[in-house]
Amino acid sequence: MDRWSSYSIQRQPGDPSIVQVIDQRLLPFQRAIHDLRSSHDAAVAIQEMIVRGAPLIGVTGAYGVALAAQEAPRTEHHFADYVARRAAAIGRARPTAVNLEWGVNRVMEQIAQVQGIKEKIATAWATADQMAMEDAATCHAIGHHGLPLITAIANANNGRPVNILTHCNAGRLACVAWGTATAPIYLAHQAGIPLHVWVDETRPRNQGARLTAWELGTAGIPHTLIVDNAGGHLMQHGMVDMVIVGSDRTTRDGDVCNKIGTYLKALAARDNGVPFYVALPTSTLDLAVADGLREIPIEERSASEVLMMEGVVKEAVEEAATGKIARVQITPDGTPAANYGFDITPARLVTGLITERGICQASRAGIEALLSKP
Amino acid sequence: MDRWSSYSIQRQPGDPSIVQVIDQRLLPFQRAIHDLRSSHDAAVAIQEMIVRGAPLIGVTGAYGVALAAQEAPRTEHHFADYVARRAAAIGRARPTAVNLEWGVNRVMEQIAQVQGIKEKIATAWATADQMAMEDAATCHAIGHHGLPLITAIANANNGRPVNILTHCNAGRLACVAWGTATAPIYLAHQAGIPLHVWVDETRPRNQGARLTAWELGTAGIPHTLIVDNAGGHLMQHGMVDMVIVGSDRTTRDGDVCNKIGTYLKALAARDNGVPFYVALPTSTLDLAVADGLREIPIEERSASEVLMMEGVVKEAVEEAATGKIARVQITPDGTPAANYGFDITPARLVTGLITERGICQASRAGIEALLSKP
Repeated sequence: MDRWSSYSIQRQPGDPSIVQVIDQRLLPFQRAIHDLRSSHDAAVAIQEMIVRGAPLIGVTGAYGVALAAQEAPRTEHHFADYVARRAAAIGRARPTAVNLEWGVNRVMEQIAQVQGIKEKIATAWATADQMAMEDAATCHAIGHHGLPLITAIANANNGRPVNILTHCNAGRLACVAWGTATAPIYLAHQAGIPLHVWVDETRPRNQGARLTAWELGTAGIPHTLIVDNAGGHLMQHGMVDMVIVGSDRTTRDGDVCNKIGTYLKALAARDNGVPFYVALPTSTLDLAVADGLREIPIEERSASEVLMMEGVVKEAVEEAATGKIARVQITPDGTPAANYGFDITPARLVTGLITERGICQASRAGIEALLSKP
Repeated sequence: MDRWSSYSIQRQPGDPSIVQVIDQRLLPFQRAIHDLRSSHDAAVAIQEMIVRGAPLIGVTGAYGVALAAQEAPRTEHHFADYVARRAAAIGRARPTAVNLEWGVNRVMEQIAQVQGIKEKIATAWATADQMAMEDAATCHAIGHHGLPLITAIANANNGRPVNILTHCNAGRLACVAWGTATAPIYLAHQAGIPLHVWVDETRPRNQGARLTAWELGTAGIPHTLIVDNAGGHLMQHGMVDMVIVGSDRTTRDGDVCNKIGTYLKALAARDNGVPFYVALPTSTLDLAVADGLREIPIEERSASEVLMMEGVVKEAVEEAATGKIARVQITPDGTPAANYGFDITPARLVTGLITERGICQASRAGIEALLSKP
């Protein structure tokens, strides 16, 4: 157990003006710590997916603004101008993640409320720190509210492990700690409930094969990796008791924007009577948007993610290459590819939203009732 | 244009006792010709997926029996016993493919009807040859019947290319020539109809990325590779006009057993009003089976197909490895994986079956009417 076994973003103990993250591009082959020493580093970390996952992107964006404040010119006008420009640049680093805007804006609002550059810098850091702590608490609360769903299935199963399918990585690596979709799983495991997780590979970036499998493996939770094509078959044969996925953005009508392929699993869950839950912090609710399909722009990423695959060489013509990390092209030369990052799961396919405030229906009424709770 | 640009299995012109196939494990990186010199070679070619695709497996099985007859002991009793044992072994090489049994049985039935070992050997070869020619003709007829479906969409599209999504490889590489799902596409392309094919990668073996992309690329047909997760998103946004897939086995009630993930695409097609067609030779109809979900055993293949990915090294720590074919492990060490080869698409999700005898509903009545045509 080192200081990285639970947390995915931390300030460096020796020099707290440096923000550190696990470089998730290298997992599961290497567990390297990546330093963010500037707002530029933070923007690049978000853009290049050194960090990924809506909540972690939000907190990284917040720390990015703190780094911008720290590196800004120390005259009142230039400071404000610089920080605003850098905040805007960070906010543009990933188009689909509403958390990023939220994280950046929250720090900007807090520093607007204090006078003096020193005070603004201190407030920026304190706000980012608080957001990190809040995110860990939020995820734990999501776990707390989701746990009874698993317990109920476990009771009905009479000792047979609860089979949970998840897509992509909405795990602790996507957050500061605990994860969203994984939080109920971690808490159920800690409570001694027998469970088993079907881990969708999640092409093209393989976040399931690389990150979720790594997370669950290090936590000792039984799991099996499957290709993204397999979930429907498993559900047809009663091998999935529930689906829990995360969300990058959920509309006020309950449409869920999440990793490409989520929609297909939701269709299969509906067709087979399998409960399909989405775990999310309420900060990812985008109340300005109603119809996810019409209103949410879907990020298109590089074709190379589809054409190429990364891994550790196990068999090669050149023996010397074995054991090294390599990228292989899996297609004929010159194959055109398209790479849509997300899809929209319509609210009608969602059994419920698991949030830090409780579980609600994926509907305007359900979300309004949840948010109006004291 | 060499003798391999249209056909996927041929007898060697110089020595027709050798059956030759394209080694599909090496595509698209190398186009190597693989010799089948014995019935054992044929069984291995089927088992190891040097050849794959239901029709090609059937024809390869038939040639395997011819090879068995050729290599069998030349005494009446030992000949019959040997050929029967080898035929049974070939028939077991892939559990899900009904064509294999059909191909093997047809040669066995034909040689049972002639007297004398020499005559039996000649009959075995002639039957296998005839099956190869028939398969090419069958696929062409599937194309002929499917073409009007594409023409109708093209007319409605007013010049916008017809967008067709396909899964796996039900192309000419899966058959002797033309392919099943691709036959209407090839004929439409030859007829000058503007079209574009969305090619599902088809994890874990990447038959789309490796074979369909290669086939369509060499034929000059516009196509774009996508991950298996993307099809639902494309259909939600009106970017798919129709789906055409192949089938390994179709029940008398119209349930379709095809490559894992087909069911998920059928669900998305239904949810978005996109026509979902299955192209198949009637030889893959399994009239002994009604309910695909309950009655068809689904082959489980090696976990290594999920854990590993093969390609040409483009970036590596060891420069020397670049340009070589390598297998990379894409997961943490020790990750458990499951690998189900096929799934069942219930008949209710299928718009129609395109066969060499015409198009019919995916239902008992539709199939009976089709088969009772003169």
